[in-house]
Amino acid sequence: MENYVIVVHGGAGPDSDSIKRNKEGIQRGLADAIQCGYDILEEGGSAINAVEAAVNSLENNPLFNAGKGSALNEKAEVQMCASIMDGETLNSGAVAMVKNVKNPVSLARAIMENTDHIYLGGEGALQYAEEIDIQLEPDSYFVTQQQYKEYAKKRKQKFRSVRETALEEIHNRAHGTVGAVALDMEGNVAAATSTGGTPNSVFGRIGDSSMIGVGTYANNKTCAVSATGDGEYLIRSCIGNSISCIMRYKNMSVDKALTHIIHKENKGIKGEIGAIAVDTEGNVGMDFNSERMHRAWKRKGKETVIKIYREQI
Amino acid sequence: MENYVIVVHGGAGPDSDSIKRNKEGIQRGLADAIQCGYDILEEGGSAINAVEAAVNSLENNPLFNAGKGSALNEKAEVQMCASIMDGETLNSGAVAMVKNVKNPVSLARAIMENTDHIYLGGEGALQYAEEIDIQLEPDSYFVTQQQYKEYAKKRKQKFRSVRETALEEIHNRAHGTVGAVALDMEGNVAAATSTGGTPNSVFGRIGDSSMIGVGTYANNKTCAVSATGDGEYLIRSCIGNSISCIMRYKNMSVDKALTHIIHKENKGIKGEIGAIAVDTEGNVGMDFNSERMHRAWKRKGKETVIKIYREQI
Repeated sequence: MENYVIVVHGGAGPDSDSIKRNKEGIQRGLADAIQCGYDILEEGGSAINAVEAAVNSLENNPLFNAGKGSALNEKAEVQMCASIMDGETLNSGAVAMVKNVKNPVSLARAIMENTDHIYLGGEGALQYAEEIDIQLEPDSYFVTQQQYKEYAKKRKQKFRSVRETALEEIHNRAHGTVGAVALDMEGNVAAATSTGGTPNSVFGRIGDSSMIGVGTYANNKTCAVSATGDGEYLIRSCIGNSISCIMRYKNMSVDKALTHIIHKENKGIKGEIGAIAVDTEGNVGMDFNSERMHRAWKRKGKETVIKIYREQI
Repeated sequence: MENYVIVVHGGAGPDSDSIKRNKEGIQRGLADAIQCGYDILEEGGSAINAVEAAVNSLENNPLFNAGKGSALNEKAEVQMCASIMDGETLNSGAVAMVKNVKNPVSLARAIMENTDHIYLGGEGALQYAEEIDIQLEPDSYFVTQQQYKEYAKKRKQKFRSVRETALEEIHNRAHGTVGAVALDMEGNVAAATSTGGTPNSVFGRIGDSSMIGVGTYANNKTCAVSATGDGEYLIRSCIGNSISCIMRYKNMSVDKALTHIIHKENKGIKGEIGAIAVDTEGNVGMDFNSERMHRAWKRKGKETVIKIYREQI
């Protein structure tokens, strides 16, 4: 036993010049995130601590669309979503449309641990963040030159309909959401996901990354999942919970469950979706239907593996 | 064929004096909601139109905690959540923390139909509501004497911690969420759910009623579900999607799937949960672990049946 392992992703979607240009930095960022989580697992720490640390590392990295480096919405504002779930207790926490919180996933965890709520949004989430003295940053902290350019480029028309904005968003995802799943020495799994949303998105859009059962799901009976891609497609599949259900009720392995939902049940969809998962025996799954999904993993005593484009794991 | 049917609920939870006192009005409200939905189905209308109309009727009825009659949060404000899903297309719409919108479920439907988004929250949702000219009402419209009393009674301390507020909330649910599921003549199912939240809840709490896969789920491959009760327990089970998955992957009937998740997988939980569901053959399921779940249903050519307390359907 003690087959601990951590997997992270940095978003699924189309390839882009920005991704090609920043390839090394992105790979280094994935490796750093893996290391943050792995160090915790190696010392006997919990899966929930490991996924939080890995996601924090990606939130702090301006090359990923979460925390610092978040996309700007149609109002040139940052609105972030995050969630976290503990497979042992089934406890979870989530935040939607939150501003100024350096690490949204840590706010989600604080809600999980210190309240009897799961899900807070907007001003209320920020108010709670202030109450518990979690680290806040000014608006300018979150905005990178790259994301501002992205915003400015797309903002051709001052007033666009919601439909136009949404269509544009869907075709212009620069880089995505981040997430992590882990199995610890005790045999517990956990998952966490964090996002800055999609560039020029409608003010008030709530992302799937904040939805327990969609962006994030963890259950020691099955696996931990973090999903990424076009939220609107992830939501209709309830992909996180569905992967768990396919394992539980259809007796599929974790990797087959991912392939089943992404390539069979969602065959031919227009959206781009992907997910990473780990079961309680340390089997991992990672699959996607897009050009690329930034991902990395490290198993006890093994080297970190980093991949971006389509290759079998 | 043409076995159309509509089922509504008016919340699951403990019994209360208010419920006893308003028993007749509540029963009349459930019957009215059924009629609104049934009339549409009888004329060959769609399941999605039927569930929207049934939920609108309950939102407009001050005896139910949705729309007019919504609970007041810790700031004495109304923040509503709603969602709707079409089992034929898997399209869905949802709103969280929305104010001033007379019928939140209709806003959720407008988001589903007129945007490429699914889920909007807070000010952004209100802004979109204004943009599409959906009916708004002043704050005072939503506040009933009953809900104000509830709020005032519980607001003993001016400043309470999030934990205290949450605990109090959980023990003080006056009456719940509303929802509807339907099967139409074409064999399509749909589900919709709407809530005013829980009395004195933390500002910014997002309810499970707005979460696709939890409060609402619909898929022509399986069934349509609307759930009610303690959101924090409904979320960990992803009850809407899980019922669908249990039918799909475990080959259980709709009523057995409900019983399985509520009484077997959630056996012994402290929370109170319930759900209604209908499959594409018109089989219905409704089950709960609480003292009561307001519910009613009407099948093609049959009388409306209304129940409040625990009796087998």
